[in-house]
Amino acid sequence: MNKTPIDFYFDFSSPYSYIASEWIEALAARNGRTVRWHAVLLGVTFQAAGLQSPVSHPIKREYSLLDFARSARHAGVPFVLPEKFPIATQNAARIFWWLAETDEERAPGWARHGLRAAFTRGVDLSDPASLRTLAVEYGLDGDAAAGVCADERWKTRLKEVCANAIGRGVFGAPFFIVDGEPFWGNDRRVQISRWLESGPF
Amino acid sequence: MNKTPIDFYFDFSSPYSYIASEWIEALAARNGRTVRWHAVLLGVTFQAAGLQSPVSHPIKREYSLLDFARSARHAGVPFVLPEKFPIATQNAARIFWWLAETDEERAPGWARHGLRAAFTRGVDLSDPASLRTLAVEYGLDGDAAAGVCADERWKTRLKEVCANAIGRGVFGAPFFIVDGEPFWGNDRRVQISRWLESGPF
Repeated sequence: MNKTPIDFYFDFSSPYSYIASEWIEALAARNGRTVRWHAVLLGVTFQAAGLQSPVSHPIKREYSLLDFARSARHAGVPFVLPEKFPIATQNAARIFWWLAETDEERAPGWARHGLRAAFTRGVDLSDPASLRTLAVEYGLDGDAAAGVCADERWKTRLKEVCANAIGRGVFGAPFFIVDGEPFWGNDRRVQISRWLESGPF
Repeated sequence: MNKTPIDFYFDFSSPYSYIASEWIEALAARNGRTVRWHAVLLGVTFQAAGLQSPVSHPIKREYSLLDFARSARHAGVPFVLPEKFPIATQNAARIFWWLAETDEERAPGWARHGLRAAFTRGVDLSDPASLRTLAVEYGLDGDAAAGVCADERWKTRLKEVCANAIGRGVFGAPFFIVDGEPFWGNDRRVQISRWLESGPF
């Protein structure tokens, strides 16, 4: 039987997405799977589900900030919370979808590059100049990347992607779909591992 | 150094609290700890934090129902979702706090008895007759237990308990505090185990 790819939905401003982005490829590879990366906007999926960011709720906010950092230490990945957080990530996501259609193999690398810049160096991905610098660091043409952010084609593509994600039940990030089974959150790593290693349970 | 007890906050209508209630005592005992059980009302902590039940949000609801059952299978505990869900649990909680003050050692057993009745047999804990039957099954005096539910003393006690929990940062259930460190959710089991076995990380 062919093993299906793992669908991995992330937002460039989601700490738990960043942590998951550091383990999903290795876990997939160990189990003979590939990963299909999907940059989405949590703002859009939250709205569809009537939700808000965990840091927008009093009391829950303090816990979330502590848990982001502790969950990163638990996973063994470096972590800093960017000074500006959360941020709008549509431009980073548009560059992702531009790459996904024009230079497909480089799209996941851009995702990792952006997530690591945000969550290990505190780079503000919502700042056009910082995003351009990041694109050039990644070997992209700076003008082309900046142009993508303002291009109706990639705006429309990102809207379609978010609508498709919502249609598949995605309401947060990271969100995984494995063999049609949905898993939400970095903390579903143990259940996803079990599923991949020994099948449905 | 004396090892501090683990504070375990639960709601009688919380599937994830039920699952956690089935592993917390054994995990604590293996690590030389005891557990202090706290029956709280999620309705009250949700309100303080501006939150709602996961099943009250469209899209998230479908996932949550699937995840309750899958998380129970993952933990190896039987599970059914009661037909009426979620329910008001103040009466089950008042009986808990009555026991906690008058026959302390029997309070955690009442919690487990109620959670198991709800989530393995679908017993409606919000129904006075069902709750009375459950109390009698547990060896309590049915009239006394019914009286507790209407007694201002235990109403007040439960309000104080919820206010204290909110003051300690509790915004959901299950919620654990270990050595002052907060952990939210059945899925923090792995991090709690690590903390207990090898200390802060």
